[in-house]
Amino acid sequence: MLNKIANAEQHLYEQVAHQIQGLIEQGTLRPGERIPSVRRFSAQNGVSISTVMQAYALLEDHGVIEARPQSGYYVRLRSRELPPEPAISHPPLAAARVNVPDLVIRIHEAIENPDIVPFGAACPSLDLLPSRKLNRALGAILRRTNYAGVTYQSALGNQPLRHQISRRALDWGHHIAENDIITTFGCTEALNLCLRAVAEPGDTIAVESPTYFGILQIIESLKMKALEIATDPKTGVSLEALETAIRKRMVKACLLMPNFQNPLGCCMPEENKKELLRILARYEIPMIEDDIYGDLYHGADRPQPVKTFDKNGLVLLCASFSKTLSAGYRIGWTAPGRFKTQVERLKVTNTMSTAPLLELAIAEMLRNGGYDHYLRRIRKAYALQVQLTTRAICKYFPEGTKVTRPLGGFLLWVELPKSVNALALYRKALAEKISIAPGPLFSAKQRYPNFIRLSCGHPWSAELEQALATLGRLAGTM
Amino acid sequence: MLNKIANAEQHLYEQVAHQIQGLIEQGTLRPGERIPSVRRFSAQNGVSISTVMQAYALLEDHGVIEARPQSGYYVRLRSRELPPEPAISHPPLAAARVNVPDLVIRIHEAIENPDIVPFGAACPSLDLLPSRKLNRALGAILRRTNYAGVTYQSALGNQPLRHQISRRALDWGHHIAENDIITTFGCTEALNLCLRAVAEPGDTIAVESPTYFGILQIIESLKMKALEIATDPKTGVSLEALETAIRKRMVKACLLMPNFQNPLGCCMPEENKKELLRILARYEIPMIEDDIYGDLYHGADRPQPVKTFDKNGLVLLCASFSKTLSAGYRIGWTAPGRFKTQVERLKVTNTMSTAPLLELAIAEMLRNGGYDHYLRRIRKAYALQVQLTTRAICKYFPEGTKVTRPLGGFLLWVELPKSVNALALYRKALAEKISIAPGPLFSAKQRYPNFIRLSCGHPWSAELEQALATLGRLAGTM
Repeated sequence: MLNKIANAEQHLYEQVAHQIQGLIEQGTLRPGERIPSVRRFSAQNGVSISTVMQAYALLEDHGVIEARPQSGYYVRLRSRELPPEPAISHPPLAAARVNVPDLVIRIHEAIENPDIVPFGAACPSLDLLPSRKLNRALGAILRRTNYAGVTYQSALGNQPLRHQISRRALDWGHHIAENDIITTFGCTEALNLCLRAVAEPGDTIAVESPTYFGILQIIESLKMKALEIATDPKTGVSLEALETAIRKRMVKACLLMPNFQNPLGCCMPEENKKELLRILARYEIPMIEDDIYGDLYHGADRPQPVKTFDKNGLVLLCASFSKTLSAGYRIGWTAPGRFKTQVERLKVTNTMSTAPLLELAIAEMLRNGGYDHYLRRIRKAYALQVQLTTRAICKYFPEGTKVTRPLGGFLLWVELPKSVNALALYRKALAEKISIAPGPLFSAKQRYPNFIRLSCGHPWSAELEQALATLGRLAGTM
Repeated sequence: MLNKIANAEQHLYEQVAHQIQGLIEQGTLRPGERIPSVRRFSAQNGVSISTVMQAYALLEDHGVIEARPQSGYYVRLRSRELPPEPAISHPPLAAARVNVPDLVIRIHEAIENPDIVPFGAACPSLDLLPSRKLNRALGAILRRTNYAGVTYQSALGNQPLRHQISRRALDWGHHIAENDIITTFGCTEALNLCLRAVAEPGDTIAVESPTYFGILQIIESLKMKALEIATDPKTGVSLEALETAIRKRMVKACLLMPNFQNPLGCCMPEENKKELLRILARYEIPMIEDDIYGDLYHGADRPQPVKTFDKNGLVLLCASFSKTLSAGYRIGWTAPGRFKTQVERLKVTNTMSTAPLLELAIAEMLRNGGYDHYLRRIRKAYALQVQLTTRAICKYFPEGTKVTRPLGGFLLWVELPKSVNALALYRKALAEKISIAPGPLFSAKQRYPNFIRLSCGHPWSAELEQALATLGRLAGTM
């Protein structure tokens, strides 16, 4: 009997869901538009609130509508309305001395200027991150103990933080012992130390193409060379191209971002991750895995780092809390596998140890559950911001524009028509107080002359929409 | 008339001072003993309190007695009771690949173990530094503003801190503009970035002999070579030896500690500093100046950094607040002269920027005067601890022991009889839960087999005296 009622109810909310989907398909409700609130729909159509709630949840599961915090439900963009994605890259197989323009420093300076629309640096909005909560956690630590974090500590870093990181790794199915973790000043220091642990000046590092300009700058500063490997905007680095380069003995180590690559946002399928490990093991090539965006998945589950499947200690995993808690705290970490001793020694000579007080505050956020709570909110917000930015690109950018479909993080990689010079567009946009990251920064040889990276780290606003309209207009007249 | 009374009073307090000096010379009052309080002496001898105070001040000026905070006046050690100083070093003029033993990591780990007597690492006691006050300053900043220090900042670092550093440089007579300063994670990062800015792997860096093992480790980690230069425990590096090395084109850059060298504690006379600059300018050789102990002078005035006299931008000044406020905050800085652009770029690729929240707290300590207040206290305490440790060495160490007379800082460099193997002594001492720094760590070629460095960063106690007695006994039986 109960079963029958349950079935009838299921039937009812499915009907409601079907009805709404019809309205969307007929164009009565358009992508991006708000749909009636649960209460209003219930009153207007004479169905119970719980039925409407179930119907909306079903539509949300199917990706037809989406909830936005404190705002209600909206119709999602349909994929057929999206511009196409950029094609796989085809950089020539030749290592290059890196030369990243000083422009990067300008892009970072723009962060500090509130008058500039922030599509440039990959820097999330303060309003999204639980920064106040984090500062409060630090305040509580200071009140509890007078002497917290004021003296030197071991080079590995703060033990409670390493404990929390170790615990979280278990969640994605991997055991990293506390003492196999070294905390660092941001992911930047982690990448730096790991590169120095596995390669020497003059050595060649395989990277995705395009890749984060910060990685190229680190390689440049260490007088190493970068070898850009063909990369698919859906599945990440081409394993075929990578193996060819390795087989030709061109590569000393790899530095890759398998999860939510910067700037592509792609995530390597699990089978690719395992195959990548087989290649690395065959040739004994270490890989530095930059997982800084790994916690920012838009889907249901966190993708596993390649490190999870590593039996040989060849993967040096690097991450930080700069995109999820606070960039100003400068707290990152690395689990460098078999290279731990070298990385530990380099940590001592580079910065001695990380700052224990800030580590304690981060550890507290991880311990008390605040981190997971906020992460859910941040992930939704990023997914939404990426979607709305994509929609605006669709609306305002010139015909022929292509754009990635990131599966995590908050970055979009935009291919503009060949006539557009991204560096010129950068300058024109800056004159209109809009910061963007031009494509040539993402290549050792300044490829991608007609690409830009847009950061969607800030909550959607009329100002952002206006800025994208301006960008589209500028690009359209080049 | 007034003049006459003033003269008579001067005469009186000079008489009192003379009388006390007599008691000391006769052995009635012994070195290290407390002398009667001003009040008691006044009552016992029927002289006014102000006369006694003037007499004590005169004796203090003459170095006969000394005030200890909250404790009273004590008879100082007389120099004729001190062991002799070590002689000038004579390392061979040959650059060497550095190889610092992993022992250094063990010495640092000892800091975290409260059961080990801390003569090893150059780490001041928490009870001496205004760490609680600093943490309170940070707490106040957190209460004032929710979003303090949570986002990325420019590579130069926090502006209020750079402002305060710039202001303080004026006190020792030098103008360094805010924007010519880059904040770093400790002096360690500053030295690291500056070395990379002026030299390449394979290049040779001239250093004092002996020198701080951390400097040798940084040179090693950057795959540079160290050239040890003869150094006088009174006046610092031998300019003659340095110029010879430079003239022979053996040196790419220098890394020196002109003020209170680690481990010697010596301070270069001003004329030597100026002559050093003339040599550097003649051959266009950059010098990294490690001034981390500069604020910890035992005498009346702060010695000026070589940077003060530099007209050519060849000096890259480096310092930190690790020895005066908190090592755990990891806040240092550099004023890299004409190498600013290179250092700024390296800062971005090394750690992006320093952590603004901790910088704000340090800036607040500098701004509100707390820093100067505590500095006076710390300087006195270090001077006293160095003196008492010297006295105990005098008492307990084997005949033939020599020890430096540091003019600032809190380190002693001790030359033991040739029969003593410092590395063996280190192991024996550690078995007795005493940490020391053996001499070979302070040389690229592990010279100084019978030397040790003792850190006097902790307030004097019966436990420290006992540990020195144990050390003396161990050394005496080798």
